[in-house]
Amino acid sequence: MPDSASPSGGTEARYVSWLRVALAEAKAGQATGGIPIGAALVAADGTILGRGHNRRVQDGDPSAHGETAAFRNAGRQRGYAGTTMVTTLSPCWYCCGLVRQFGIPRVVIGEARTFHGGHDWLAENGVEIVLLDDPECVRLMEHFIAANPGLWFEDIGADEQDQR
Amino acid sequence: MPDSASPSGGTEARYVSWLRVALAEAKAGQATGGIPIGAALVAADGTILGRGHNRRVQDGDPSAHGETAAFRNAGRQRGYAGTTMVTTLSPCWYCCGLVRQFGIPRVVIGEARTFHGGHDWLAENGVEIVLLDDPECVRLMEHFIAANPGLWFEDIGADEQDQR
Repeated sequence: MPDSASPSGGTEARYVSWLRVALAEAKAGQATGGIPIGAALVAADGTILGRGHNRRVQDGDPSAHGETAAFRNAGRQRGYAGTTMVTTLSPCWYCCGLVRQFGIPRVVIGEARTFHGGHDWLAENGVEIVLLDDPECVRLMEHFIAANPGLWFEDIGADEQDQR
Repeated sequence: MPDSASPSGGTEARYVSWLRVALAEAKAGQATGGIPIGAALVAADGTILGRGHNRRVQDGDPSAHGETAAFRNAGRQRGYAGTTMVTTLSPCWYCCGLVRQFGIPRVVIGEARTFHGGHDWLAENGVEIVLLDDPECVRLMEHFIAANPGLWFEDIGADEQDQR
């Protein structure tokens, strides 16, 4: 049955269309020399409240992960009921903490093959997790990590031999 | 025995001196109409790597909690071994996630009476927690919450009847 909230068909198609927004952000980050992780915060009606990408390199800002950038760009909100955080990569603890603290009820994840963050913890705490296992997201991170291991491990606070 | 890393005496005195930095940030936030929570990221040798305060009001930035502002202002770091996050208030899940992801090994907390965040979770995961129970930090938040309940609950993503 079609999802009435989505112009593009069912729920899965809606999630995929939102992932395209996050992926466009990841590619914009890559194109400016940054870490290719993007995200969007989406309202229940499909409105994009905020979108952004990792800006560690571009701004020298280690707090700007894809998800926190999208959250920041959404500006002040009185609440997050019905929202979805869409991200190209499994969210790290920092970004999972954001989701839990602000009561964002759903996270749509492009892939969790190259990095498995804290989304199981979110699921245990009542957050709906949708893992799309998108091949393009996987390829983007595989190429980035292979070419820039030091930058990648810096971004997740890990030693190169001790990926957390 | 005096702590050789501190000009002001033992370990406790060192933590209190760091808390004064975080408290000065909280007051600077209050003085500019903001939420009075401040923090500092301190290196093992006592160097203040970054300091900051909540800037939800001043910048319209919901991602700028005291701890994340201090972390951001410290700029890019290759690692966080030996660092301490000092904060006037028990860190929320968002800020706890930051601490866990980046392997910050110690958190010094001004108070946890007006808000009890996720610091027990950090302790369970190997982070050293020092709770100073500072009366000035308590008073600052009590007065702020009493005068600005809506703003406070917005900042922690809670309904007014449902403080998380």
